[in-house]
Amino acid sequence: MRAKSVILPATEIPRQWYNILSDIKMNPPLGPDGKPIQPDALAPVFPMNLIEQEVSTQRWIDIPEPVLDVLSIWRPAPLTRADRFEKALGTPARIYFKYEGCSPPGSHKPNTAVAQVYYNKVFGIKNMTTETGAGQWGSALAFACAQFGMNCKVYMVRISFDQKPYRKAMMETWGGTCVASPSTQTQAGRDALARDPETPGSLGIAISEAIEEAVGDTTGQTRYSLGSVLNHVMLHQTIIGLEAKKQLAMINEYPDIIIGCAGGGSNFAGLAFPFVQDKINGKQIEIYPVEPKACPSLTRAPFVYDHGDTARYTPLLPMHSLGHAFVPAPIHAGGLRYHGMAPTVSQLANEGLITPKSVFQTEAFQAGLLWARTEGVIPAPETTNALALVVQEALKAKEEGKEKVIVFNFTGHGLLDLAGYEKFMAGKIMDFALSDEDMAKSMSVFADFPKPQDLKSF
Amino acid sequence: MRAKSVILPATEIPRQWYNILSDIKMNPPLGPDGKPIQPDALAPVFPMNLIEQEVSTQRWIDIPEPVLDVLSIWRPAPLTRADRFEKALGTPARIYFKYEGCSPPGSHKPNTAVAQVYYNKVFGIKNMTTETGAGQWGSALAFACAQFGMNCKVYMVRISFDQKPYRKAMMETWGGTCVASPSTQTQAGRDALARDPETPGSLGIAISEAIEEAVGDTTGQTRYSLGSVLNHVMLHQTIIGLEAKKQLAMINEYPDIIIGCAGGGSNFAGLAFPFVQDKINGKQIEIYPVEPKACPSLTRAPFVYDHGDTARYTPLLPMHSLGHAFVPAPIHAGGLRYHGMAPTVSQLANEGLITPKSVFQTEAFQAGLLWARTEGVIPAPETTNALALVVQEALKAKEEGKEKVIVFNFTGHGLLDLAGYEKFMAGKIMDFALSDEDMAKSMSVFADFPKPQDLKSF
Repeated sequence: MRAKSVILPATEIPRQWYNILSDIKMNPPLGPDGKPIQPDALAPVFPMNLIEQEVSTQRWIDIPEPVLDVLSIWRPAPLTRADRFEKALGTPARIYFKYEGCSPPGSHKPNTAVAQVYYNKVFGIKNMTTETGAGQWGSALAFACAQFGMNCKVYMVRISFDQKPYRKAMMETWGGTCVASPSTQTQAGRDALARDPETPGSLGIAISEAIEEAVGDTTGQTRYSLGSVLNHVMLHQTIIGLEAKKQLAMINEYPDIIIGCAGGGSNFAGLAFPFVQDKINGKQIEIYPVEPKACPSLTRAPFVYDHGDTARYTPLLPMHSLGHAFVPAPIHAGGLRYHGMAPTVSQLANEGLITPKSVFQTEAFQAGLLWARTEGVIPAPETTNALALVVQEALKAKEEGKEKVIVFNFTGHGLLDLAGYEKFMAGKIMDFALSDEDMAKSMSVFADFPKPQDLKSF
Repeated sequence: MRAKSVILPATEIPRQWYNILSDIKMNPPLGPDGKPIQPDALAPVFPMNLIEQEVSTQRWIDIPEPVLDVLSIWRPAPLTRADRFEKALGTPARIYFKYEGCSPPGSHKPNTAVAQVYYNKVFGIKNMTTETGAGQWGSALAFACAQFGMNCKVYMVRISFDQKPYRKAMMETWGGTCVASPSTQTQAGRDALARDPETPGSLGIAISEAIEEAVGDTTGQTRYSLGSVLNHVMLHQTIIGLEAKKQLAMINEYPDIIIGCAGGGSNFAGLAFPFVQDKINGKQIEIYPVEPKACPSLTRAPFVYDHGDTARYTPLLPMHSLGHAFVPAPIHAGGLRYHGMAPTVSQLANEGLITPKSVFQTEAFQAGLLWARTEGVIPAPETTNALALVVQEALKAKEEGKEKVIVFNFTGHGLLDLAGYEKFMAGKIMDFALSDEDMAKSMSVFADFPKPQDLKSF
């Protein structure tokens, strides 16, 4: 019997994360005064041990044993050959995928949720708050909090809260609390409701509510948690790529191409960063983050200083951004509807170490459908964006007659996103590409912000 | 790092199924004339190669390579230590679970769906029909048909069709067709609609529709498929227990107790039968099928001849049955709401080789919630019935201070059944136990049927 999956022995699980900050130079985040922000300023929002990790430039950072212990529920995750998909495409390429859908919440998100909750617990925190859009991140944090006996409060954007009741049930099954945002429980929520009692909510408002609750707890026992964008989140996800490298070595393969979808950037970073390190050290390898054409921060937006949230609570981050007030078209890959891109991922694009790509929603669903009918597992809409590029590259390899090795990150299954497939099969999914005019409009918000190239003035 | 899961190398996947008919004597199924039915009589419904398998008494039956090839998408499945659950219960018992939720449809059902579709394909069949209640079986058959390029038509009980739209989307994503039953596409469906245009449908009507479509295809290219109860279905599921035995041997463990939930009997049989063989050969081991107190066929109903379906289309099967017209209380474990029990499982209970148990719905959900909050994966409602007994046995081991080894079958995840958990947490889940009066009433239907003990007259 052929081995479809390469299984890494439990003893071989990576024991350190790879920190890309050891290999690239980054612009610092800026405070409200336009000057580099000091770690202390973030202390009411994040625990100090995570803030230290956020700014660390140490190359290898130990993964704490209690974190490994929870990760071992589903890790090491399999690296699997997509031979049925290859056959359907008639490609000589060998396609491998790292399967992150085997975690209890069904995505890569718990890789960082578990670590963040652990560090908060060690720091003496009792309650975690966060926001969630489609629900993947809120579910992951609720799961992680259950493992460490922490309280979890998730502000879920109202429109998703109403459309996806099962996500709330999932969070509650893990003992979390999930409220529709805007809620009456915070000033930010009450203000939003006063402005528009019928508002569908937004990620911006939900972030404001979650931060307000964390900062407002005068006992100091509550902190906020973010599921992407920040350096420490990318760090925690590198276990994906570190496992993949070991697994590829076990079968004497090395990738020609690495592919991951990119919203805030964390799953892409997780698979790609360990291979970026190889590339910095001279390896020949193509690394492609894939984003929707409806939300093309890396492929089309400039590298600027912008806020990470719509409500402008966060420091100014150096990143490719469509503007913090940008509202993307209603594509089904909710996790890829973010206006900016992780500063680390943005910087790698600036340096030409990775090559951003974008795809249309229908080609993504088409690839997802072919995948489901050949490889079985129904992919999350986010994952199908990566798959669309995998198809393009596999067909290119076929044209060129080259046995390329393609490795991509299968971020999660789509069992809670089946409505999207239903619409696609009924011909009701539209393609969206951001117009130049709308892009210019959305980016006007940071016209007066400091520019990364002016940084030397600090 | 400790190994939480025991991973069987791909080369060690079982290459033969274990056939319990080689080790026990069974009463034959009877035809409409009350005499043992001849294999030919089933030819319009099932392909002859599967009918031969149904009556085979050969102990080991080779698993065809193309079946192994599809199973290898998710098999060998992990055997995992539930150490976090053990700790929460404070038990000295070592609890292991065989995780069947990693299949693309999320349950153990594709183990037989893949085999059945393969044998149909080899026999020259092009179209498969079946019925589905909650949707697990229909999803599994649609997935299997996609792998072999077969057409799949699923009649889904209308009330489930309306309540669980994602199951339909899932089947369609795999290329299947799913229609609400009763439909206007069959005589049985039209008759049912004429009787009551607002009927919520029933498994009985859906079976009638699926069989009618298969038998009615005059080209002979269509056959019907059943997801439980029959001997060949139990056979295909034994890969679960055969894998588990190898995995336990790898860590020098042998179970004191085997537990599986039992509706039609197939997941229970899959894990248990290879251990039943050991028991027949003298091993000391307790084997417990668990059913809901709302549908207690094995624990309370007599061993009789009864039809497998409400519409009385099937032969008379020798089994423990609550009567083919029995309508169980609306418990959430839809897969356990079957009036009868697989003849093989029934026979093992008769011979004292297995010891049937029953549990209440709320203790099942309570166990499921504890599981989700400790081990992470949210169990399907069916699985929680097994879990409720695992909890009882683990606490008994604690009381007795014994290091018992408990192995149970984790039939599937509950990601498409979260509504049940939501209701449970809201205190809206009721316990149902069948009353003696209702049981007597439901069993009156087979008062005049032949009795298994009269069989010698044939």
